[in-house]
Formats: sequence, structure tokens, C-alpha cells
Amino acid sequence: MNSALCSCMTSILTYETYKSVVVRSWPLGIVYRLAQLIIISYFVGYVFLYEKAYQVADTNIESSVTTKVKGFGKLDNAVMDVADYIYPPQGEGAFSIITKIIETDNQFQGRCPESEKEFNCSSNADCIQHLGSVQADGMITGECNTTAGYCEIEGWCPAEDDKVKIKPMPEFVNFTIYIKNSIRFPLFNVTRGNFNSTKDIKTCKYDKIEDPFCPIFQVDYILNETRQNVTMLAEKGGEIGIIIQWRCNLDHDVNFCVPKYSFSQLDAPFQNAKLSKGYNFRFAKYYKTEDGTDYRRLHKVFAIRFDVIVTGTARKFSLIPTVINVITAVTSVGMGTVLCDLILLHCSKRAQYYKEKKYEEVSEEQINESLTPKPGSQLSIRRGNSSCNDSGAVSISTNF
Amino acid sequence: MNSALCSCMTSILTYETYKSVVVRSWPLGIVYRLAQLIIISYFVGYVFLYEKAYQVADTNIESSVTTKVKGFGKLDNAVMDVADYIYPPQGEGAFSIITKIIETDNQFQGRCPESEKEFNCSSNADCIQHLGSVQADGMITGECNTTAGYCEIEGWCPAEDDKVKIKPMPEFVNFTIYIKNSIRFPLFNVTRGNFNSTKDIKTCKYDKIEDPFCPIFQVDYILNETRQNVTMLAEKGGEIGIIIQWRCNLDHDVNFCVPKYSFSQLDAPFQNAKLSKGYNFRFAKYYKTEDGTDYRRLHKVFAIRFDVIVTGTARKFSLIPTVINVITAVTSVGMGTVLCDLILLHCSKRAQYYKEKKYEEVSEEQINESLTPKPGSQLSIRRGNSSCNDSGAVSISTNF
Amino acid sequence: MNSALCSCMTSILTYETYKSVVVRSWPLGIVYRLAQLIIISYFVGYVFLYEKAYQVADTNIESSVTTKVKGFGKLDNAVMDVADYIYPPQGEGAFSIITKIIETDNQFQGRCPESEKEFNCSSNADCIQHLGSVQADGMITGECNTTAGYCEIEGWCPAEDDKVKIKPMPEFVNFTIYIKNSIRFPLFNVTRGNFNSTKDIKTCKYDKIEDPFCPIFQVDYILNETRQNVTMLAEKGGEIGIIIQWRCNLDHDVNFCVPKYSFSQLDAPFQNAKLSKGYNFRFAKYYKTEDGTDYRRLHKVFAIRFDVIVTGTARKFSLIPTVINVITAVTSVGMGTVLCDLILLHCSKRAQYYKEKKYEEVSEEQINESLTPKPGSQLSIRRGNSSCNDSGAVSISTNF
Repeated sequence: MNSALCSCMTSILTYETYKSVVVRSWPLGIVYRLAQLIIISYFVGYVFLYEKAYQVADTNIESSVTTKVKGFGKLDNAVMDVADYIYPPQGEGAFSIITKIIETDNQFQGRCPESEKEFNCSSNADCIQHLGSVQADGMITGECNTTAGYCEIEGWCPAEDDKVKIKPMPEFVNFTIYIKNSIRFPLFNVTRGNFNSTKDIKTCKYDKIEDPFCPIFQVDYILNETRQNVTMLAEKGGEIGIIIQWRCNLDHDVNFCVPKYSFSQLDAPFQNAKLSKGYNFRFAKYYKTEDGTDYRRLHKVFAIRFDVIVTGTARKFSLIPTVINVITAVTSVGMGTVLCDLILLHCSKRAQYYKEKKYEEVSEEQINESLTPKPGSQLSIRRGNSSCNDSGAVSISTNF
Repeated sequence: MNSALCSCMTSILTYETYKSVVVRSWPLGIVYRLAQLIIISYFVGYVFLYEKAYQVADTNIESSVTTKVKGFGKLDNAVMDVADYIYPPQGEGAFSIITKIIETDNQFQGRCPESEKEFNCSSNADCIQHLGSVQADGMITGECNTTAGYCEIEGWCPAEDDKVKIKPMPEFVNFTIYIKNSIRFPLFNVTRGNFNSTKDIKTCKYDKIEDPFCPIFQVDYILNETRQNVTMLAEKGGEIGIIIQWRCNLDHDVNFCVPKYSFSQLDAPFQNAKLSKGYNFRFAKYYKTEDGTDYRRLHKVFAIRFDVIVTGTARKFSLIPTVINVITAVTSVGMGTVLCDLILLHCSKRAQYYKEKKYEEVSEEQINESLTPKPGSQLSIRRGNSSCNDSGAVSISTNF
Repeated sequence: MNSALCSCMTSILTYETYKSVVVRSWPLGIVYRLAQLIIISYFVGYVFLYEKAYQVADTNIESSVTTKVKGFGKLDNAVMDVADYIYPPQGEGAFSIITKIIETDNQFQGRCPESEKEFNCSSNADCIQHLGSVQADGMITGECNTTAGYCEIEGWCPAEDDKVKIKPMPEFVNFTIYIKNSIRFPLFNVTRGNFNSTKDIKTCKYDKIEDPFCPIFQVDYILNETRQNVTMLAEKGGEIGIIIQWRCNLDHDVNFCVPKYSFSQLDAPFQNAKLSKGYNFRFAKYYKTEDGTDYRRLHKVFAIRFDVIVTGTARKFSLIPTVINVITAVTSVGMGTVLCDLILLHCSKRAQYYKEKKYEEVSEEQINESLTPKPGSQLSIRRGNSSCNDSGAVSISTNF
């Protein structure tokens, strides 16, 4: 029993290593070491240092944005403040600064001519065709008032005439946008804010070189960065992206985990599209007359929509990718052998000789020969005294 | 010095390769080559071609959505246009089309009976119990008006009676939703829009087969796709997801990077839940009487909420995953040896013979023997003239 | 032809395995097996069981959130219901509960003194300096009314005085927030809702221990969890994150894929910042006088903004990471050899002997010698009868 255990241990506690053939050849040695050097350089330089493959990444950023706009403008002789020109008012990450309003006041439910005055109808069919193509707002049925010669619609009257010329509010370029962004990388449980707490941010103004961490952005700075035509923008509206990019290497101090701002024109992919440019939407303010009748003021507003888009990646050392990459690296170094074997065994003048050294052949005939008991056999096999077969180790004594 | 360097170089510039045993056996050869073939097929076919493991993926999509709804409906004899039935109006990715409104007009702050007329109280305790269970809107204190026999509440009066039957607006199924979606994959810096700029999109209508890239969606098409009961939806409201999926293989032309639309019923996971179905919310319009008293009109609106959800993955060739997978593949091919060794050394009739060939044993006794200087020793060891020990290469001369 | 094919097959269907050197040494065996054990334990225990490296992850969660708040409060003697204190009303994932309102009623466009009564001006320059620093709302031009001694502004008059003391609405802590969240993991096409459909959720209340799956949250529970000063919060406003975390192991039953709620103070990163704390925004309600003049009531509202942030990861078994990790594991076990070789060949007393056994040297001289035909050469090489050179296998017959 004890002896069986002992012999079993003996057979397990053996060490197995590959038998190697060493070729003392300068040219081959140079190729071999060069191949190894290139592979090591690639892994150390590119995989580990440049691509930081020893780190695990978290792109699943949790973000919360609040914004606050400040400034005053004058539109159609009325002073506009934040409550007038910001939509929606609650300081979301996506908000619009209204630059131009086409108002259609005192609209009541009823029947009235559609807005396009120049069109004269003679039958209902005329109106159906005409209104179908212009898609006038307020229309539900288009009938021809044959006496007056216009198409009559049912809905909020008078109908909106959005062809009217309105001077936009020019002061919007001076408005400032304050952005508060707090983020968290759930994988690493790291929480960050978009500005340094110790600095006084009340008086600063963002500038990508002078003050890249100030969270207060002047509208014209953003418009300049995105190379917008300000006049066109005020007239037609537009969509601007304020991109906050967090690229954090958490192996360094967390204080280096800071945001990087950039600005983009969100409708850039539609630049060449055959559609009405700009950004506008309609809303209404509702009133009641003394006798309780509803009426409204319809606003078609042209606005610059700002979309704060937060994106981020945090990276930190992690054992699994490191181990996998180190092992891949070590294994890859061994790949140098594959290359050199090709040269050695196929391209070398002495290929034949190397093959003999590298390969030891066992053919069926040889085995059969050896298994047939012959007097004076060259090989006598003695099985090692191991009682378990886990290890394939066998002792061989050869008489030369 | 120079000679030491030279000999050191000699010892470094050696090439080391594994010594192999080659077995000329058809059955084993077939198993071996078959195992290699399966492994290579798996890597080439599944890992590289099917799963595209040579690419790196970016799922961290930046997206901006604006929407615009068009159409007219009639609710309670009034014509409704976008300004009336879209909430919020600014064209966000998440918006509601109002299909039914329960209005409670001329609400003033005061005390009044709660809405459920059928309930008769005799004490305050009755009311607290009753109101607690119905959670009537407008209630803050529920006292029993014993003379009239009803529970009295304090708040906006009269209280809302949301049991009233209102016919919903049926025209909403004809409304069209225009969706503008611009995305960016930050890792590859690729920006795309959801429609082809050169096509005229003003007149098209989305159809998954006929016109899969048109960004204008008719509401009833979406409802059909999600197999909704339109009558129920108009009555109770609902939540619909418009999913825009970007799957881009950036190794191909970027013009193949197009969106795929799908529609889902967002409240599907709650289908069997014991809770009030549908989607509704309340808001109020505020008015002032001539003498400056505030009053309001409470709206309980039933709406179809559309949620444009953008999701995406871009993939592009990258060196690191390619190298790791290629090396894994090459290493795996070597794994065929492990399988065949098991067969060769344990299942073969000639296992014993193969073991002798594969393994060369070195036991303590042998070492001790060889280290004791004996006259007429069979092995005489001569250390190679290398002056540095980095390489383990030694020259051996054996006299047979 | 046939014979050539046959011999080619013979040469392909050979099996090649590494020739090994087996060292029967207890100390080295122990080190070798221990190294292997540590490597296997690391892969089985850490990589596979703990880090679940056999799974692929989807962090690209699609989420849709709707919320509904219930409760009544009293602010400035008026009863407030949801339509009054929730902003925006449509039940978004980000919404604000208004706790305090500073109202500036009956504002008309005009000229009036700015709000800070204590400031006396004597020139326009005084006003420009003063108003620039206080940034009074409603200001566009600040001129000194020298007779009255105050700065005059143009805009909505009277100007807002936000220094006024208002008692906030204390009942907000009793409000309940009902959250409906449906998610989808696009990679695995798994859709889940945030509560169990079979349970009656109408009467439950969330508690992280007692009822962790109830989707109804009482405001004071959330505030307690984030350790907020409730009085301060009601006074100044604040930002609270309700984080819904989905961590799903889809190798288990999908019913175990449940949300985990946590609460955080979103302005925590700005705790030490030199800026006005809290959360507030301004909006206006617009009215018309009998003669059609516009006037408004400006609201500066202090609110608690709740942001429902949904984050998630689903994991499921996948062949590619499994194969890569298994192969890395198997390759790593072989790394034990590298360690032991170092000991064996450099630190062992019998290093010299082991080197002889492990390495078989082939030097240029030997090759040259063997290639020169000599009478009575010790080695005669006979090329195997294979007609194709794909396999490097050669048969060697050596006469000892």
C-alpha cells in the first residue's frame, strides 16, 4: 500500500521538458533572434504601451447633465429673457434657444381662407389638390368658397402665414451656456464632475486653449468652432452638438480624468439633402375670452437646438487581459521558431541534415521489428516500476 | 575582450527548435490531420468569417434625434393640429401624440365634493377610508359634509371626474412622423445620417420592403407592425418604441452603413401585470379672471408615446484582436498533438514502444553515475567555449 | 501516378509529436506540479468561475422609462397637485418635483427699477457696473434714473426679486414615484420589465430589504438613502439619481434577470465647488389683458430633479471567448516548463548534465563534416520514399 503510493508519487513527481535541437549557425541565429525581437517589440510597444491591452475598458458611462442659459435679447421690440426663449425651461441636456418667432395671434376655432392668398380656386377639387401639396397648417377640409375664390379651411383661424419676414433676435450670440455634468463609470465606481471644485467658475469663459475646463460656453464661440453661418442660423435654426468626452486612464491619478469638449453641427450628414434646412417647431399659448371661449397664439419658432452628448471610456489595469496578452506574447515569441524551421528545413542547403537531426522517425516496420522477440535484440525495454500510468514516463536502457 | 564578445555572440546567435518524433502510421496520421482540419475550419469559418473576430467593435454610439409630426385630427368638435396634440412640442426623440383628453375646466382653489358622486358618508372616518382607496385627485383633506352626505376635499375645484366617456381622436393613425437621426461612432470617427441625401424624401413613406430608408413613418404602419389594437390604444394610450439599429462593417464602404428600423411595444414586459394599462399624464393650462384670480383647466391626456431608441455597433479591422486570434488559432492547431498523444501513449497496442521513443528519461541515479568520474566512461562532457550563460546551448561530443 | 499519390499520402499522414526529456527528480517534480497547479487554479477559479471569462457581455442596453408621481402638497396656501408641481408633466425619466416657487406676478414689458432696492446710483456708469455684477433678470440696458436714484432696466416689469423668503412645500417627502422601465439587450434579444407581472404592485412600497422589486418609491426613502438634508433640499433644490442596474447572467433562468435600484446625489462631485448650490429654473405663464396686452407671471422654481439612469450588462456563454481562454489556460500550463527549465538549467548543481540531455547541438562543423563524403562514414543518410516535401519527415537509418 505504502509502497504503491510511493511509486505513484514518484511517477507523478517527474518533470517533463521538451528536448531541443540547438543549431549553431550565425545566419539562422540572426534571423531567429530578429524575428523574436520584432515580435517582442510589437507586443511591448504596440499592444502594451500604445494600445494598453493590459487594461479593461468601461464605455458604459452614466451621465447626468443640467444646463443654464443666461442673457437677454430683443425680438420684435420686446425684451426676451430665459423664461421666454429657452425651451424646455428645466435645464435639460437638450434645449433650444429661440432666435425667431412667427406668431399667429388670436386664433379661434372656425372656418377661414387658407394662408396662400395668391391661389384662386374654382372647385373643391382645385383646393384638395392645392392644399395637399402645400400642407397648410390648420387644414382639415379644404372646400372652395366659389364666391370669394379662395380655399376655405376648418380649424384654428386665421391660418398661419409662415412666409412673413421677421427679423431674428441678434443678441443670442452673446448668451452663455453653463453646463453641469456629473458622470460615473459603474465598472470602477468612479464619479467625476466636469469642473474643478476649487476654482471659481463664476467669471470664467470656455476657450479650448486658454480655459479648457471652464463649464461656461459663449454661444458665438461654439458657432465659430463649428464654422456656422450665424445669420443663416438665426434665420432658419440649427442643431449643434456639444460633445463632452471623458477618456480616463484610472491607473493614473483620478484627477487626470477630465472632460474634453468639442462642438459639431448635428445636421452635417444632411447637408446635401433635399429638405428644408434648419430647426423649427410649433407650440401655442392658450387664452380664454371673458365668456370662456378658447383662443390661442400659435408660435412657429426657429431655434438653435443644443444637444449635450456625453461619451466616455475609462480604462484600468485588469489581470485577465494582461495574462491573456502576456501569454499570447510569450507564445508569439515561440512563433519565431515556425519561421526559422521553414527556412531551416526547406530553404537551407543542409535541409536534409537538419531534418535528420530534428525528426526522429518511428515507422510501423520498426515497431513490428522491435516487438518481435529476436535473440540479440538491439533494444531491451524495461518498464519503470511505477504502479500508475498517469505519467507516460518510462525508463529506457539502451545498450549501444 | 573582443574574443569574449565574439563567443558571447556565438552563444546568442544559436537557433533552438524542438526535436520531434515522427510516427509513420496511417490511422494516427488520419486522426492527427483530421483534428488539425477541424480546428482550422473552426477558426477560419466560425471565428474569422462568421464572428469576424479580426475586428474591433464600437458600441458607444453618439446619437441625436429630432422628430416632426404632421397631420390634423378632430377631438370633441375642435380641430387639433401639431401644436395641440404633440407633447413636448420641440421635436425630441421621445414624444407623445395625444389621442384623448379628459378636460376639467374652470378649476379654482377651494372646497368641493370629491368626484365619486355615488359615495355617501356619515363621518370623517368614512371619507378618509374612501378617499385613501380611490386616491382622488385634488384631495388633501377629506372631511365629511354630513348635511349633504358627501366627502369634501380641498384643492382645485371642481374635482376631476376621469370616469367620463370621451370619444378619442380617430385621425391619429394617418399622422406621419419624420425622424432625423445623425449618429457618430467616436472610436472610428464616422458620422452618418439616417437617410440618403440625394433622394427626395419629401414624398416617400417608410415600408420595410418597398422603401426601407425613407425617414417618414405613418402611425398606422407602425401600429400594424407592433400588432396593436388601435381602438384600445386610442382609448387608453400606449408606448411604442421606434428602434433604429446601426450595424456597420467599416471594412466595407461607409455607404453600406445604413439604419434598420424596427418597432416594438415598450410595455410588452408588463402585459400580464396587474396595473392600469396604457399611458396617460396630466397637465394644466392656467388662466386669470379679470380680477386676477387664478384658475386652470386640468387635462388628463391619453397619448401614444413614441420613443426613438438608437442602438448601434460599428466594426473595423484591428491588429490586436487579429494577432491574438491568429496566435490562438496556430496554438490550437498544436492542440491536435495533445489528443493524438493520448491515443498514442495510452490506447495504442504499441504504446510502450512509442513512450520509449517520445520520452528520454533522466533519473537521479543516472546523473549520479555520470557525475562520478569512472575510468573508461562512455560519456565525456566538454563545455562549449561560450563565456556567457544566457543560452543553454552546449556542445556535446559523444564517442560511440 | 497512383504510387505517387500513395507515397504523398504516406508522407502527409504522419504524426509529429515533441520529443520530451523526463527528469525523475522529486524536488523538481514538486516545483513543476505546483506551478501547474497554481496556473490551473488561477484559470479555473479566477478567470472562469469568478470573472466568467467564458461569457460574452452586452452593455449596449436599450431602455425606456416612464414615471408617475402621486401626492398633494400645500404651497403658499394653495393645494398643489401633480399638474402643478411636476415638470415636465409627461412622465419622462428625468423630471422635477417643485418644492418652492418665487412668483413675480403681472409682469408687463416696460421700464422699471431693478430689484436691488438698496443700491443708489448717480450715473449710468454706476448702473452698468452694478448690474453687470448682479446680472439682474429682465435687464437689457441699465440706465440711472438720477432723480429717483435707482438703476432702470428695460424688459419685463416689475423685476424679479428672488431674495424674498418663501416657505417651501413640506409634503413632498410623502410623494410616491412609480417607475416603469422596460429594457432590451439587443445582442441576446432579451426584453425585461422592472417588476414581476404576477404581483400586485399597487399597494407596495420600495424597500431595499423588505421589497426590493417594488417599483413605487417614496421620496423620503430616497432622500434618506442619499443622506440628504431635507430642509436644505426643499429650500435650494437638488439633483438625485435613481440608478437602475441590470446585471443579467443569461446562462441562468431569465427570471433572475432583475433590476437593482440605488440612489445617488448627482451634484456630489460639485460639493466643494464655489457655485450656488441646488437646482432651480425659471419659466413663465402668459396671460392677456382684455385689450390684448401680454403679461406674464415669472416663476423661479426650486425643484428636486430626479434622473432615472438605467445601466446594464448581460452576459451569456459564447464559444469564442471560451475557446480563447481555454487555449490560453492550456498554453499557460505549459509555461510551468519555462520556470522549471530556468531552475534545472541554471540553478541546479547538475545543470551541466541536464543541458546535455535537453539540448542536442548541431554546429556548422558537424554539418560540413557530415556533408563531405568520407569512406567509412558513421552516418549514411537515406531519403524516405516520399515524393512530396510537405512534411519534413525523413527516415534515418543509423549504423552504430
